[in-house]
Amino acid sequence: MEKELITTEQLEQLIDAKNVKEIRRIFEVVPTIDIAECCDDIDDVKKLVFIFKTVKSEYTADLFTELSPETKEKIIHVMSDAELTNILESQFTDDLVDDLEDMPANLVTRVLRNVSKERRTVINKLLNYQENTAGSIMTTEFLVLLDSLSADEAIKQIRSVGKSKETIYTLFIMDSKRNLVGTLDLDDLIFANGDTKLNTIMNRDYVTVQVNTDQEEVANLIKRYDLNAIAVLNNESRLIGIITVDDIVDVIEQEATEDVAILSHVAPLEDSYLETSTLQMAKKCVPWIVVLLILGTFSSMVLSIFQDKLALVPVLAAFIPVLMDTGGNTGGQTIALMIRGLATKEFTPKDFWKILRKEALSAIIISTCIAIFAFIWFTIEQYTGIVSLGDLTRHGGEAYNFVGKTIWAGNCWTFEFAATSLRVSLIVAVTLWLTSFLAKIVAVLLPLGVAAIKKDPAVVAQPLLTTIVDVISLLVYFGAAMLAFSSWLVV
Amino acid sequence: MEKELITTEQLEQLIDAKNVKEIRRIFEVVPTIDIAECCDDIDDVKKLVFIFKTVKSEYTADLFTELSPETKEKIIHVMSDAELTNILESQFTDDLVDDLEDMPANLVTRVLRNVSKERRTVINKLLNYQENTAGSIMTTEFLVLLDSLSADEAIKQIRSVGKSKETIYTLFIMDSKRNLVGTLDLDDLIFANGDTKLNTIMNRDYVTVQVNTDQEEVANLIKRYDLNAIAVLNNESRLIGIITVDDIVDVIEQEATEDVAILSHVAPLEDSYLETSTLQMAKKCVPWIVVLLILGTFSSMVLSIFQDKLALVPVLAAFIPVLMDTGGNTGGQTIALMIRGLATKEFTPKDFWKILRKEALSAIIISTCIAIFAFIWFTIEQYTGIVSLGDLTRHGGEAYNFVGKTIWAGNCWTFEFAATSLRVSLIVAVTLWLTSFLAKIVAVLLPLGVAAIKKDPAVVAQPLLTTIVDVISLLVYFGAAMLAFSSWLVV
Repeated sequence: MEKELITTEQLEQLIDAKNVKEIRRIFEVVPTIDIAECCDDIDDVKKLVFIFKTVKSEYTADLFTELSPETKEKIIHVMSDAELTNILESQFTDDLVDDLEDMPANLVTRVLRNVSKERRTVINKLLNYQENTAGSIMTTEFLVLLDSLSADEAIKQIRSVGKSKETIYTLFIMDSKRNLVGTLDLDDLIFANGDTKLNTIMNRDYVTVQVNTDQEEVANLIKRYDLNAIAVLNNESRLIGIITVDDIVDVIEQEATEDVAILSHVAPLEDSYLETSTLQMAKKCVPWIVVLLILGTFSSMVLSIFQDKLALVPVLAAFIPVLMDTGGNTGGQTIALMIRGLATKEFTPKDFWKILRKEALSAIIISTCIAIFAFIWFTIEQYTGIVSLGDLTRHGGEAYNFVGKTIWAGNCWTFEFAATSLRVSLIVAVTLWLTSFLAKIVAVLLPLGVAAIKKDPAVVAQPLLTTIVDVISLLVYFGAAMLAFSSWLVV
Repeated sequence: MEKELITTEQLEQLIDAKNVKEIRRIFEVVPTIDIAECCDDIDDVKKLVFIFKTVKSEYTADLFTELSPETKEKIIHVMSDAELTNILESQFTDDLVDDLEDMPANLVTRVLRNVSKERRTVINKLLNYQENTAGSIMTTEFLVLLDSLSADEAIKQIRSVGKSKETIYTLFIMDSKRNLVGTLDLDDLIFANGDTKLNTIMNRDYVTVQVNTDQEEVANLIKRYDLNAIAVLNNESRLIGIITVDDIVDVIEQEATEDVAILSHVAPLEDSYLETSTLQMAKKCVPWIVVLLILGTFSSMVLSIFQDKLALVPVLAAFIPVLMDTGGNTGGQTIALMIRGLATKEFTPKDFWKILRKEALSAIIISTCIAIFAFIWFTIEQYTGIVSLGDLTRHGGEAYNFVGKTIWAGNCWTFEFAATSLRVSLIVAVTLWLTSFLAKIVAVLLPLGVAAIKKDPAVVAQPLLTTIVDVISLLVYFGAAMLAFSSWLVV
């Protein structure tokens, strides 16, 4: 039968009724993470402790791992040292380290006091690896076999070690000098003849990472080589840990969420959204907005310089938002493709010329489509009166004599009025073409340039792009306007 | 020793020299995907065929899988039917189906002619599953064991079936009526006593998906329950396929890239960036830009209505871009958090009130910080002359008599000038506060609302947000300006 469902209320009722038998059954038929989420919603810590006392330790270890940090802290507070040791010793070291990173100092001390001495040394070491490196996500519970063993001997050894290792699906093979010489997939071991030596069936083309390799790089390797686990080496090329594919699934999602966040001008959250406090959220959101606001000064400057021209041909103002939005949007498309491509290692800064040629070509097509559509659409906007030419009386005789006749005759659409409207549409369309094209080119140059100097392209490239494109589009716009309406605008 | 490296030139030289021994060694010490990338760069198809004839079939099956679609097509073209059958029969069905989806019809026919009849039936069925569903990514090569077997019998059976299954790390357990009753992790089988019956050690709390379940949902389940493989059932609840974690790694990355693309107004690419043609790229980019351009009409309308006011107080124009950008940016932050949170199942539309309260609270803090900073910054901009108040002469006596004295005395900063500048800064800051706050609220309402009616929040919510925020910010801005400069602006 498929997994059963349980609600917080049902679980609390079982605890209140001290229905030990049913609680134990629940742990057999409901995945632990579903139960953990119910536990997170139970406020009374005594009820939680009852569960830990009732259920088999093979389940409580998992349950503890899956609880939220707050619930873990609550439980640690009320448990005796003996009970705590019991739970902690059955946890995988990497999970334990993840927990400790989020805990207040007094609890960390208490936890460290309640684990074995050897384990404490390992934990302390893991806690010291820099965040987002291979060292910070690796586990030290891996299985090493000698390359001189036979398949049958290996299986016997695996069985004797028991279920204390993070994975037995990838086995790490060492020679007699304790150098890593290969990896072995468990299925190859199962399928091998009993007397085959491991060094004839192991993979010699295995991949390793250094302890300070970035976790995104680790994820890319595991994905590229379709690995179940990867070896982590220290500076002396000794095997000191492994990283398994299920940890990498989280990394991939985390890095993708970071890309989305940065492209949307949020500093990546350290906790999940719901666990991030209001003040933390403000800290993540405000700095970027302020930076962008300061960068916006450049477009304010340009507009300020030309603001008197706007007063002379007011209709020009109506198209400023759509102009700047479109520049930002077309550039944003390209920069997003660049940043994801770089993140997933689909290409590197070395492919620069190939990408630039490709993007320039499609920029020409895309900009032309947009400009043609925009010309037609803006003319419709003016024809229907959605956007009006505004008060041109200030131009006196000249405005009225644009092509020799009055262009504004009451409220009706005259030939001369049409000519002026078309001229405005043309200015906007030409500006759009140039802005879209340049935006896409800048959107290639910036992230690839930033990546080439080994900085994170997502952080630096995006705000600069907006600023550059905004300023370019305004300069082109007013330049084109002064050319087209030179008799009115150029004094 | 760790994996070796190889370049395309080295590989071509080995082929030219017909150095069979070294080529075979290369396949032992270099991961197949690295060799496949070199092969993709070799133009001469005869050289590629030489590799396929030289190397052991266990490697060529993998090599073929890893080649690019173009290289695959080239090879299929020149191979004899017998050679083709050889390679195809050693491929996993799900990989083969992925290939077929990208191939021209004549090659598909040829491939289907060269596989066994039973396989053809399976392939045709898989080809008919809708894209992005469980059915389209599942494989039919899974291992089923009877629940009445003992552990030793099970291991014997696994060994006899051999390496033809996609995974043996998760085993699927059926009762005598061929109903799925449990799953079993290979390590639990290895650690069990030889005579233990499978139905006492299997997991009864397993999870399944339907054949038409969305692949993103499948990814979320595998991640949540830390699975190595998940069972896919048909409408009659029969096990018809499985999906393994390595396929899910690709799905997670693909879905993340899609989120980034859509948030950046690109329709998700079907192929990788480098493989997408210029015309395809234009098709992915242009429609969104055109839609946004049309939606931009609303802000043009608002600006057109107020354009004569801009002519009266020209300085107002200078702050329009920064105003609209900031509204878009603050809203964009929230919408990105919402869309990723919904995609990774961190929360659902049911958490609406919790999220709205949280976001409203942080919106108040964030907007206040921004508004205060903006007020100071815009005043500095005006004080330093980066942005000038513009030509106010048109307001005649009134402008000059703003607080009873001339406000513009040559080029110097007078008290009255300062008062006007501060008033402008205040208008912009107040507008910024309101826009930022409303943008964040709308950015919660839109994606959660769209998700609640089961549509993709990323596609619908983002363009609507920009439009709504642009219009709101302009209306608030001119409203505030008319209040503050009522003597000049309200006739």
